[in-house]
Amino acid sequence: MTTITNALNREIEISADSHANMKPYAGAHDLTAHLLNKETKRSRKLYESLEEAIANSGLKDGMTVSFHHSFRGGDKIINMAMDLIASMGFKNLTLASSSLSAIHAPIVGHIKNGVVSKIYTSGLRGDLAEEISRGLLEEPVHIHSHGGRVHLVQSGELNIDVAFVGVSSSDEFGNANAIKGRSRCGSLGYAKIDAQYAKHTIVLTEEIVPFPNAPASIAQDLVDAVVKVEEVGDPSKIGGDATRMTTNPRELLIARKAADVIEHSGYFFDGFNLQTGSGGASLAVTRFLEDKMVKKDIKANFGLGGITATMVDLHEKGLIKTLLDVQSFDSVAADSLARNPNHLEISANQYANPSSKGAVVDRLDVVILSALEIDTDFNVNVITGSDGVIRGASGGHSDTAASANMTIIVAPLIRGRIPTVVNSVLNVITPGSQIDVLVTDHGVAVNPAREDIKARLVEAGVQVGTIEELQQRAEMLTGKAKPIEYLDNVVGYVRYRDGSVIDVIKQVKE
Amino acid sequence: MTTITNALNREIEISADSHANMKPYAGAHDLTAHLLNKETKRSRKLYESLEEAIANSGLKDGMTVSFHHSFRGGDKIINMAMDLIASMGFKNLTLASSSLSAIHAPIVGHIKNGVVSKIYTSGLRGDLAEEISRGLLEEPVHIHSHGGRVHLVQSGELNIDVAFVGVSSSDEFGNANAIKGRSRCGSLGYAKIDAQYAKHTIVLTEEIVPFPNAPASIAQDLVDAVVKVEEVGDPSKIGGDATRMTTNPRELLIARKAADVIEHSGYFFDGFNLQTGSGGASLAVTRFLEDKMVKKDIKANFGLGGITATMVDLHEKGLIKTLLDVQSFDSVAADSLARNPNHLEISANQYANPSSKGAVVDRLDVVILSALEIDTDFNVNVITGSDGVIRGASGGHSDTAASANMTIIVAPLIRGRIPTVVNSVLNVITPGSQIDVLVTDHGVAVNPAREDIKARLVEAGVQVGTIEELQQRAEMLTGKAKPIEYLDNVVGYVRYRDGSVIDVIKQVKE
Repeated sequence: MTTITNALNREIEISADSHANMKPYAGAHDLTAHLLNKETKRSRKLYESLEEAIANSGLKDGMTVSFHHSFRGGDKIINMAMDLIASMGFKNLTLASSSLSAIHAPIVGHIKNGVVSKIYTSGLRGDLAEEISRGLLEEPVHIHSHGGRVHLVQSGELNIDVAFVGVSSSDEFGNANAIKGRSRCGSLGYAKIDAQYAKHTIVLTEEIVPFPNAPASIAQDLVDAVVKVEEVGDPSKIGGDATRMTTNPRELLIARKAADVIEHSGYFFDGFNLQTGSGGASLAVTRFLEDKMVKKDIKANFGLGGITATMVDLHEKGLIKTLLDVQSFDSVAADSLARNPNHLEISANQYANPSSKGAVVDRLDVVILSALEIDTDFNVNVITGSDGVIRGASGGHSDTAASANMTIIVAPLIRGRIPTVVNSVLNVITPGSQIDVLVTDHGVAVNPAREDIKARLVEAGVQVGTIEELQQRAEMLTGKAKPIEYLDNVVGYVRYRDGSVIDVIKQVKE
Repeated sequence: MTTITNALNREIEISADSHANMKPYAGAHDLTAHLLNKETKRSRKLYESLEEAIANSGLKDGMTVSFHHSFRGGDKIINMAMDLIASMGFKNLTLASSSLSAIHAPIVGHIKNGVVSKIYTSGLRGDLAEEISRGLLEEPVHIHSHGGRVHLVQSGELNIDVAFVGVSSSDEFGNANAIKGRSRCGSLGYAKIDAQYAKHTIVLTEEIVPFPNAPASIAQDLVDAVVKVEEVGDPSKIGGDATRMTTNPRELLIARKAADVIEHSGYFFDGFNLQTGSGGASLAVTRFLEDKMVKKDIKANFGLGGITATMVDLHEKGLIKTLLDVQSFDSVAADSLARNPNHLEISANQYANPSSKGAVVDRLDVVILSALEIDTDFNVNVITGSDGVIRGASGGHSDTAASANMTIIVAPLIRGRIPTVVNSVLNVITPGSQIDVLVTDHGVAVNPAREDIKARLVEAGVQVGTIEELQQRAEMLTGKAKPIEYLDNVVGYVRYRDGSVIDVIKQVKE
């Protein structure tokens, strides 16, 4: 114990083994130099240009930059920021976007030039996917699920240095949302995690609005810098083709069957919880379910996930009590988030992280998912095409499948001359043990582990076959496919939601 | 690089230097055993009793338990939980409550019995304060500000093991708020931090409501356990005497003068930002300001802090655009938070943490604060009485004073026969450099560092004297006080908002 006179001339005694904070008072603004200038203390986060914001972000070669994919095919932030980062001379960066789309083809150039050396993403499509599938990256790309990404962030593997968050409105202090302003993507469920865990967060906004901007999807205390930019994204391209309601008779047939399966599965009761994917058939299920809900006076408690116009429609009709939205899948959903008090924004940690203290997926009764391939063990591939090339996304597939009480895959038996139901999928995203029912245009198969569901379906008169029969039928229609020849080179790690490696994607021999 | 066959019979290759997460897939629920039981996976956080929840919390001797003080004098959680913890035999705990009141006198027994050995709090009153002032605790009590507490938590000194969060409503997954249900305390601004940083968070709720409870002031992914309890607090005692509108003519005189000072200070303009304390005169300032705002057609942009019925009244009259509420200071404010869309809940990190990326206090134009003592260097004491005994709270005093463009202290020149304006305060909470104006019933003094404010007041005809004149006048009225005799023993550390020790509280000789 020593007596010290502090900067206020007070005699203080601090024990020798006290905490680092417990130093003598050294002045009112020892920790808050930013408050000394009354002119700049409120506007201190504002930067004139993105370049200036990046220059002041602490970004260095070898670090990790992150992005959210809420605008999907309409995103304008990733290319803008990465082009600038490249022009500023940064090298050897890890690019961690919650997902990537076909429009991010310019990343190919940044990889070739050494700007990007490592990628974490849920999905890849287009030229970037093609090139990576052909061995463009020295370290294989890490494909993670939406929930798994949060786990990688929280467990320290994905250590975000600088997060870029594109929004339609922010105040100068960084309170930001994407439900006000011009280019609205709705929920910022993925960006919430990046802003929370990044060492430095830059908000790119189309509009600077008066303080305080509310609601604050991203709050001021998570934001280091705010920059006004011309455009963050094109909301009309969020949904794209992926979320448009199908008129394809085969998809409608599958959807109708899937609705029948749900009705008789034992999980169709007042207050059930539902997630649908964004595929054509998956979306259409909701429509057929609507009739059944009205007829049986059944209302869903919540609709989860990427929220679509269809879900919003059911919500506004009173058929789904609450929408829990990690990602607004079209502009209708984005606007509903602003308008409907029971359409709630949730973070990716609240959505699907397996190590979260509470993920909503754990409360799902029914999830409807799609597949590029499904094999006779019910393993599902949503990442590589039949040619072995990456053209998909892991998304919430394995997260919801592992957590819901019933997981249904909807898929056509064959696509063109390519079978969907196969003996062994080229790559696994979701293990078959987590898939309960497969609904195709040629019939329904139930996982032998779920005899309970099968019994209820049979009881209700739903025709149920085996997945082997469906595989054989597919093979009969398409012929036996020639096996793909692979090189030894691994181009992608498929990370299960817990971070473990469930599969590797090998380079295809051409 | 070795090739391994994982639990799905996939051959994978993982490089030797890869991350800990990158192990071979070992099963769908390797990380999520809680999902295997479909009966319990949704209700897994629910406990029958608080004792059961504590027994499963990981609490051990020597750990830190935390509480929030939103119910102030009406709190029923702290005594309930600490009594139970004591009966369960835990010892040597650090009690970290955002503040403590006179009703927490039973803590005295827990200190004597070795259950509690260390306390962090913003304030202390009543028997507990008396006993600690007399040396009850071996390690001096740590008195922190509301913002400073978050800094201590984030910098690791205050390492919360188990947080107890009392609320009026929660669902079984832990989505909780205090604006629905019976005993509503309104904002959970302090609890938000505890829930975020605690290793284990227990929500004590009066009511379990259907999932999802919204808004989620405390969200499901921050909560480990949920327990239904009879009562969490008495909302009628949140305000107590401290926040009732005064009819005391002397306080009204001070308030009228303070409103005049604000009007002519240069900080009274359309869109100014305001915080008032909860003292009688401080609260009354708002009333006098109202007339001036109406007359001059001036509206405040935001009102900050502990929000009172008076603030709500001005908000509902359209005179304050937004209320930013870290703590609802009475039940009227608590109910307004539920009702008014521009009455927003903020966390203590968003309110006042000096190391926050964005604290609202940084944007204050005017803050009105009270004082038990203020000295001729403008140093303010709000923690010890004139007898040197602890009977107050640090609160947001130093946080707002350091951050606002103008800090006004309102106080009577003398209280009974005790002077408020003195040569040197017994203990410093807020350094004089951060105080701009003192308004007493005997006159106004401006800090010599703020000649700009003084010039504007004089120009407008406001009488301004020196603080020395006020001190002399007080001494003339009360006589020279006999200096307090202290022992060598330190009973309290006064921690400045940055964690440094601005003063120590010594034990009084009796």
